[in-house]
Amino acid sequence: MFSTARAVVCLSLCLAVCQVRGSYIPVEMNRTFQSLLQHYNISPAERYNRKPVFSRDPLSGRMEAQKVYMGGVLEAYEKLLGHMLKQLPAPQTAELPNPCDAEKGTTKDVRVELSCILKKVQDLRRHSFQEEGKLLQSLQALKHVKMEDEVIQSKALWELPWLYEAASSLSDDRINQRRRRRQARRAKNRP
Amino acid sequence: MFSTARAVVCLSLCLAVCQVRGSYIPVEMNRTFQSLLQHYNISPAERYNRKPVFSRDPLSGRMEAQKVYMGGVLEAYEKLLGHMLKQLPAPQTAELPNPCDAEKGTTKDVRVELSCILKKVQDLRRHSFQEEGKLLQSLQALKHVKMEDEVIQSKALWELPWLYEAASSLSDDRINQRRRRRQARRAKNRP
Repeated sequence: MFSTARAVVCLSLCLAVCQVRGSYIPVEMNRTFQSLLQHYNISPAERYNRKPVFSRDPLSGRMEAQKVYMGGVLEAYEKLLGHMLKQLPAPQTAELPNPCDAEKGTTKDVRVELSCILKKVQDLRRHSFQEEGKLLQSLQALKHVKMEDEVIQSKALWELPWLYEAASSLSDDRINQRRRRRQARRAKNRP
Repeated sequence: MFSTARAVVCLSLCLAVCQVRGSYIPVEMNRTFQSLLQHYNISPAERYNRKPVFSRDPLSGRMEAQKVYMGGVLEAYEKLLGHMLKQLPAPQTAELPNPCDAEKGTTKDVRVELSCILKKVQDLRRHSFQEEGKLLQSLQALKHVKMEDEVIQSKALWELPWLYEAASSLSDDRINQRRRRRQARRAKNRP
């Protein structure tokens, strides 16, 4: 009887620890989401139309690629939440430096709640997706190459041999990296 | 005239260095670049203005990030070369299925030469940067989210808890991966 009780207590403790480790969304943030979804209400047919705003397919590939995509998703959320804030009526009171402080109170102000979620997204992106942010900026810069400019065309042609060489070399590096991993796995599994 | 000669000498030197490193650029392709640069000629002041069209900074980071950036660079080159081809006068003869076959002859037709370089870039991207191409497409799709649409706003809010959780988890995974690598290095170096 005592051992069963001990096992139950241990299991509960273990699950509690897992929950603490696994949960990235605090209770307050959860409540904020629920409250916001009551304000931004749509019909079930619209919500469950099997067309997600953000595809999850890229989140099944290599971790590095997942991180780049997730950096892009968080960037898109920053823009979207900023856009939603702009659509709201002008604030009645001065905005707080940290809107999540107000969130802990009982007030349900859509602006404060949206600002708090925006801050959480910004913080996560700045703390954990900085490198991805830089890469996304570099990729963005590629969209602004003035393709019709003759000087740019000539300079780009001039740069191409080096870049073509580097691209080919990178491709080979990955093939070699995969080969090394395969060899290491084989060596590990050898009796 | 002098500037063209200097450009050709510089390019030959650059290509010679590439050849020593391990050549990914065949001799014929080398010649095509030189010939095209004679056609797309600009002044040395314009060429060497320390403002490259494609920044090389992202090519000093992690290999996976380098590959994503390089995928974007090759994609930009495809567009640029396509644009340059459109600016040329209409072709006199039927276009070849593989323009690089004609390149081996003695004719110096800018259209054929550009088409050949375009084909080489396309082939490299298709064979070695396929995964990066898919990721770039997913990132591109993020730019087309209709931020002013209320249904999209509500659906995006609905999707955010899962994505926020996944992003936080990904961030932790990388920290753990780095920790494991550090521990493995330490274990390896232990006497």
